[in-house]
Amino acid sequence: MERTRLRDLGFRIGNLETGRYNAITDVVGVKVGHVTISRDQPQILRTGVTVILPHAGNITDQNCFGGSHVLNGNGEVTGLSFLNDFGRIHSPIALTGTYSVGAVHEGLVKAEILSGASADFKLPIVAETHDGWLSTGKALAVRPEHVLEALTNCKSGPVEEGNVGGGTGMICHEFKGGIGTSSRLSIVSEKTFCIGVIVQANHGSRQRLKLEGIPVGRLLPSDEIPTCRKRNKGSGSIIIVIATDAPLLPHQLKSLAQRAGIGLGRVGGLGETSSGDIFLAFSTANILPAWGQGSFNDVRMMQEDLTTPLYDAVVEATEEAIWNALCMAETQHGQQGRICHSIPLNRLQDIIKNYGSANFDI
Amino acid sequence: MERTRLRDLGFRIGNLETGRYNAITDVVGVKVGHVTISRDQPQILRTGVTVILPHAGNITDQNCFGGSHVLNGNGEVTGLSFLNDFGRIHSPIALTGTYSVGAVHEGLVKAEILSGASADFKLPIVAETHDGWLSTGKALAVRPEHVLEALTNCKSGPVEEGNVGGGTGMICHEFKGGIGTSSRLSIVSEKTFCIGVIVQANHGSRQRLKLEGIPVGRLLPSDEIPTCRKRNKGSGSIIIVIATDAPLLPHQLKSLAQRAGIGLGRVGGLGETSSGDIFLAFSTANILPAWGQGSFNDVRMMQEDLTTPLYDAVVEATEEAIWNALCMAETQHGQQGRICHSIPLNRLQDIIKNYGSANFDI
Amino acid sequence: MERTRLRDLGFRIGNLETGRYNAITDVVGVKVGHVTISRDQPQILRTGVTVILPHAGNITDQNCFGGSHVLNGNGEVTGLSFLNDFGRIHSPIALTGTYSVGAVHEGLVKAEILSGASADFKLPIVAETHDGWLSTGKALAVRPEHVLEALTNCKSGPVEEGNVGGGTGMICHEFKGGIGTSSRLSIVSEKTFCIGVIVQANHGSRQRLKLEGIPVGRLLPSDEIPTCRKRNKGSGSIIIVIATDAPLLPHQLKSLAQRAGIGLGRVGGLGETSSGDIFLAFSTANILPAWGQGSFNDVRMMQEDLTTPLYDAVVEATEEAIWNALCMAETQHGQQGRICHSIPLNRLQDIIKNYGSANFDI
Amino acid sequence: MERTRLRDLGFRIGNLETGRYNAITDVVGVKVGHVTISRDQPQILRTGVTVILPHAGNITDQNCFGGSHVLNGNGEVTGLSFLNDFGRIHSPIALTGTYSVGAVHEGLVKAEILSGASADFKLPIVAETHDGWLSTGKALAVRPEHVLEALTNCKSGPVEEGNVGGGTGMICHEFKGGIGTSSRLSIVSEKTFCIGVIVQANHGSRQRLKLEGIPVGRLLPSDEIPTCRKRNKGSGSIIIVIATDAPLLPHQLKSLAQRAGIGLGRVGGLGETSSGDIFLAFSTANILPAWGQGSFNDVRMMQEDLTTPLYDAVVEATEEAIWNALCMAETQHGQQGRICHSIPLNRLQDIIKNYGSANFDI
Repeated sequence: MERTRLRDLGFRIGNLETGRYNAITDVVGVKVGHVTISRDQPQILRTGVTVILPHAGNITDQNCFGGSHVLNGNGEVTGLSFLNDFGRIHSPIALTGTYSVGAVHEGLVKAEILSGASADFKLPIVAETHDGWLSTGKALAVRPEHVLEALTNCKSGPVEEGNVGGGTGMICHEFKGGIGTSSRLSIVSEKTFCIGVIVQANHGSRQRLKLEGIPVGRLLPSDEIPTCRKRNKGSGSIIIVIATDAPLLPHQLKSLAQRAGIGLGRVGGLGETSSGDIFLAFSTANILPAWGQGSFNDVRMMQEDLTTPLYDAVVEATEEAIWNALCMAETQHGQQGRICHSIPLNRLQDIIKNYGSANFDI
Repeated sequence: MERTRLRDLGFRIGNLETGRYNAITDVVGVKVGHVTISRDQPQILRTGVTVILPHAGNITDQNCFGGSHVLNGNGEVTGLSFLNDFGRIHSPIALTGTYSVGAVHEGLVKAEILSGASADFKLPIVAETHDGWLSTGKALAVRPEHVLEALTNCKSGPVEEGNVGGGTGMICHEFKGGIGTSSRLSIVSEKTFCIGVIVQANHGSRQRLKLEGIPVGRLLPSDEIPTCRKRNKGSGSIIIVIATDAPLLPHQLKSLAQRAGIGLGRVGGLGETSSGDIFLAFSTANILPAWGQGSFNDVRMMQEDLTTPLYDAVVEATEEAIWNALCMAETQHGQQGRICHSIPLNRLQDIIKNYGSANFDI
Repeated sequence: MERTRLRDLGFRIGNLETGRYNAITDVVGVKVGHVTISRDQPQILRTGVTVILPHAGNITDQNCFGGSHVLNGNGEVTGLSFLNDFGRIHSPIALTGTYSVGAVHEGLVKAEILSGASADFKLPIVAETHDGWLSTGKALAVRPEHVLEALTNCKSGPVEEGNVGGGTGMICHEFKGGIGTSSRLSIVSEKTFCIGVIVQANHGSRQRLKLEGIPVGRLLPSDEIPTCRKRNKGSGSIIIVIATDAPLLPHQLKSLAQRAGIGLGRVGGLGETSSGDIFLAFSTANILPAWGQGSFNDVRMMQEDLTTPLYDAVVEATEEAIWNALCMAETQHGQQGRICHSIPLNRLQDIIKNYGSANFDI
Repeated sequence: MERTRLRDLGFRIGNLETGRYNAITDVVGVKVGHVTISRDQPQILRTGVTVILPHAGNITDQNCFGGSHVLNGNGEVTGLSFLNDFGRIHSPIALTGTYSVGAVHEGLVKAEILSGASADFKLPIVAETHDGWLSTGKALAVRPEHVLEALTNCKSGPVEEGNVGGGTGMICHEFKGGIGTSSRLSIVSEKTFCIGVIVQANHGSRQRLKLEGIPVGRLLPSDEIPTCRKRNKGSGSIIIVIATDAPLLPHQLKSLAQRAGIGLGRVGGLGETSSGDIFLAFSTANILPAWGQGSFNDVRMMQEDLTTPLYDAVVEATEEAIWNALCMAETQHGQQGRICHSIPLNRLQDIIKNYGSANFDI
C-alpha cells in the first residue's frame, strides 16, 4: 500500500477543520524547504536539513514574536536564550541531525551575512534530533552550503513529509519517522485563526504508540514488524514547531508551545529521559522592526481568556503531524545493515476498523 | 449504581501494577487528612481542606526533596518560590478552595507554631481550586482551625475520594469532581518503586473528556445529563500531587511533576486558559535535616537515564486519579439552586463496552 | 540628628534625575497605603501592612502588565504563578510580615468581594519579609481588616518610609530597616519615562553594607552600634516593587525586575540563602480589559534594544530606596527586650566625607 | 607600564583569600586551553577559542553537576536545555566569537567522536561573545580543528589572560577586554572550598565602569583614551564560568551561577539589552557515571543554609576576573583601521590613590 497521510486513510483526529494543505504552510507566509542527503557511497548517509521561514519577509530584518517550551531537555535548540528573553524570532528555524548542528549553525550565519541584513545577530535557531542509527553520523555530511540550498528551496503550499530534509533518517515509536505536518482552523471571537504544526519526529517507543487511545503499537508486535534501536541510549527526540496568525504576545506563545506536549502525549510520547522534546511557537500577526530600527510599536494581542481554542488546535495538529510523519515515511535501509520499517498502513487500517472508533470514516 | 472507583468498574488504565490501596498513601509514610464542610444553613457550604503529610516525621524539622511544574498558571500554590529554589518540601501540603487560601495559610503557620519545630519558616504550601460555583465562597467558611483538624485526621491506608476535604465542592469535566487518588509500582534497575498521585480535580470541559481515547464526554450529552458552569469564567483548575519513594533529586522531581500534564491531557485536560494546572512532586527517599541543623549530607539519586518508567507511572496514576475523582464523587446540590451531576457509572460502563477497549475486563 | 532621606544628607546615587517626590508614586496613578501596628500591650507588636495600587482605576477590572524575578526564593509572594504565565497584574500588591500572609491574603479577597469587580480571580499578590525578631509573630496581629484599612489609606504623593506599614518591624543590614522608596526619570527615544521603586527591606549583613563602594557597614562596627539578629536563621528578605510608565510587555517587565538585583547587590545584598529576594515590576502604559471583558487589544511596546536606560533607572532607584529605608527608619525596641539600632546619620555623613566620593555634595 | 593583574597593582577586591594561582584552575582538576588566531593577512583576524575542562577525567564519560543563569539572553550558550533539565555537565565548555559557534560546536562533536567515549551525546557547550568589531567575522576563521588544538593545550596552573583564546578580540567597558580569571577560598562548616571564575568579557559601557564604587570609567574620558564601538548595536556580552569543589547539587549550582550577576553589577555591568550575560557553574565534588553506566549514586551535598559564603566568593572572584581581563589585555589594532585601547594602568593607580580606598595597599 502506498504511503499516504493519516487523513487519507479515513481517520480524522479531533474536531477542528484543517487549513487548505493541512500543513504549517497554511499559516500565510510560512515557507518550508528541505535538502535531503541520502546516498550509499562512500558512506551510508540518511540525513539532511529542513528550514522554516516564519513569514514572507526577511526574518532577520523583520522579526516576529515567539516562545518555547522544553518537555525534556535531552536535545539542542540553539537560540533559545534570546528567544526566552526577548520573545522574538529573528532567524529561520532549521531542523537537522545531532551531528550537524554546528554546520547548520554556520550555514545560517553565512546566510545572514549574504542577506545583507542590517541587523547583526548571528544567533540562529538550529534544532536537532539524532539520526545516527541509520546514517553515518561521524561523516558530518551536512555542510553549511546545504542550509543555503534549503533556504532556496523554501516554498508555500504542500510540504513533503517522511524521509525528507532533517527528517530523512529519523525513527518514531520504533517505526520509520521524520517530517510531518498538519494544521487546524480555530475560531476566536468570530475570527478564524490558523495553527500550523511541523514536527521532526525521532522519539517514542512502540509500546506506547496510540491512536486516539487505540494501542496501535502493541497490536503491531516486533515479531511481526521488527523494531529498530531497541534501547534508546542517547537517541530519540522530537522537535515541534507551531506557527499561527493569531495575535499572541511572547508569553502567550510560550503557553501555546507547552500545549504541544499534550498532543505528543496522546500519541504516546512521554518526554522520555533520553529524549529532547523541545517546542517552538511563533505568530505572524505582528511584524516587528529589526533590532535598532524602531522605537515604539503598537502590537495586537488576543485577550488571554480567549486562547483555549488555539490550544485545542495545537493538540490536534501536533497529533496529526506525528501521525503524518509515521504514515508518510518509507521503510529505510541504513548503515551497518540496519533497517527501519515503516508502519504498515493496511494493518493500521485494520486495527482502527476493529476498534470501531468514532473518528473513523471507512 | 453505587459510586465506585474506576478499577471496580472493570477498567484498568495502563499496564503497571498499583500499590496496595491504589492511593498516594502506598508511598510509605505519606498520610492524608480531610475536613469536609458541607451544610445548608445559614449559607450553603460545599468546601473543606485536605492535607498531605509527605512522610511519617515532622516535615518542618525533617525535609524532603520536591519539585513543581505549572502547566497553566491561573491558580495559586503558595510556597513555590522556596520549592523552586531550594528543592525542599518543609511543610504539609494543603488543598482547599480559592477563597480559603488565606485561612489555610494561617492554619499551617499556627500548626508550625504549635509543633515547636526548631526551624522557623512559615512558608507553607497551600494549593487551591475554585469551589465558588456550588459553595458560598464569600462566606469564607474554612478557618485556620480546620487545618489543625485536618492535620489530626491524617492517616495512612485508604483515602476517601470524591466530595471530601478540599474536593468537596469541585467540578470536573462538567461532572461532579473532587479528590481522587491512585498509585503505580515501577521497576527500575531491579528495584520496585511506588508512585502515588492525589488530585483535587476542578477542571475540564465535557467535550474533551476521554477514557483512553473513548470520547466519553461527547457520548454523555448535556440534554441527557445537564452540565454545570457552562462558561468557565475564572473557574476550573486541577492540583496534582505526586509522591514517590524513588531517590530523586530536586531537578528530577521537577521533571517528574511535568509528566502529570501528559496524564491530564489523556483524560481531556488542556491547561485551559482559565485553569490553574499546577503539579507538585516529592520523594521520601532522602530525609534531610532541617534548615540550620546539618552541614553535609549524603543523598541517594537515581541516574537520570533510568527515570522513564517512573514517568509512565506518573501518567497512569494521574489518569486514574482523575477518573477516581469523577467516579467517586456524588451528585451535589449547591448554592442558588445549582446542581452538579456525577458521571453516571452505568452509562460509563455501557460506553466502554461498546468500544470494546482492550483494557476493559467486563 | 533627625532621620532624613539619603539625598537630604547631600548624597546622590547615580546620574539620573528623580521624579517629583523621589518615590514610586512619581509614576502617575500609583498609590501607596500603610497600616502600622506598633504597640506594647498585651504583646509587643511591630508589624503592619503596606498596599500598592498600580494605577488609578480598579486593578481587578483594569489590569496592567507585570513580571517578576526571584534572586533567592526563601520567601513568599503569592500570585506569582498567575503573573508568570499571564504577565498581568490584577490585584493590589500587599507587603507584610511572614506570619501575616494568610490574613492579608484573606483581606485582599474580602476587598475584591466588596469591590463588586466583575472579574472573579481571588489570586491576590501578598509579599512578606520576616518581622518576628522585633514583633511577636505568633500573635498573628495583622487581620484582614487591616488590609481594607490600608487600601483606604492609599494615596499619591510623598510616601512614608522607615518603620511604617509592612516595614514596621524590619531589619536591614543589621540596622533598623523597613519601607523605602525612590524614583528616576529616564529618556528613551526622546520620551521621558519614570521608574519608581518601593522596597520592604529586611535583609543583609552589616559586613556587606556599602554605599557606592564605601564599606559603610565595616566602618560602623558592632562595638560602636550593637547589631541585632546576629545569625540570620530563617530571617532576612527584601521585596522590591518597580513601577514604570514605559510601555513594556510582560517579558520586558521580567527583565526589568531582574535588574533590581544589581542595585541590591551594589548596596551589599547577596541573595543570601536565608533570604527571600523577590522582585516585581509593572507598567501603567497599557491598561487591559479585565478577564472576560475584551477580545483583541492594541498595546504599545518599546523596542527591546531601547530598554537599557530603564535598567539604569531601576538600579539607581533600588539602591536609593534601600538607603532611604535605612536612613528613615528609627531605632526600635522590640519583644524580649531586643533593640534594633538605626544607622547613625551623622556617622554616615562623616564616613562619606572621609571617602571624598564624587557623588557627595557636602 | 607593563600589563599586570589587578592585584599586582596593589588593589584587592573583597576579603577572602585567593587560591594559589588566583585562577579557575585553583579548583583541582580544572584545566584551561587557548588557541589564539591573530594575524593581519589575508584578513585581519583577532579571534580564537578557549576550552575549559571541568575535571581531570574524560568529561563525556564522567559527568559532574552544573547549573546556569541568564541575566540577559542576547547571546548563545549551546547545551543549556540539557544542563537545565539534567543538571549535568558532560562536555568541555568552549568560549569563542559569535561567528564561530558552529565551527566550535562541530569541533567538540569531532573531539567526542575521537575520544571513543561510550556515551553518545553530541550536545556540547559552546558560548560566544561578539568579536566582529576588531576581527573580520565573515572570514569564519575558527575551524573545528582549532577546538581539538585547544583541548590539547588544556593545562592546570596559571591561566593566560587578556587577548588570548576566545577573548582575543573582545572589548570590555569600551577598553580592550578578553579572558580574565580569579579565585577565592571560602570556609563552610570548618571546611575550605575553592571557587574559581573565568570570564570572556566583551560587555559594558565606559560610563558605568566602577572599581569598588570608584567611577573609574568616567574618570578616563574618551577625549583622553578614545572609546571604541560607540553604539553597542548587536554586540557586547559576557560569559562567566564558575567552578567549585564544594558539594553542590544542580539546583544549588543554578543559585551559585545567578550570583555572578552581582559581581558583574558591581563592576558596572547591567545586563544591557544588547548583551548576552550568561553564567555557568559546575562542581567537581561529585563525579557521576556517564549516561547508561550507572543505576543509583550516593552524592554529597551541602545544606542549603550554608551556601552564603560561597556566594561571597563568586561575587569577589567575578569582579576580579573582569578586572583581570581589563588589566591584562593589551591595546589592539583591528580590521578597518579600528583600534581598541587597553585601560591605562598608571592612570588607574592614580585614580585609586586619589580615592583612598580601604582596599588599596599602595
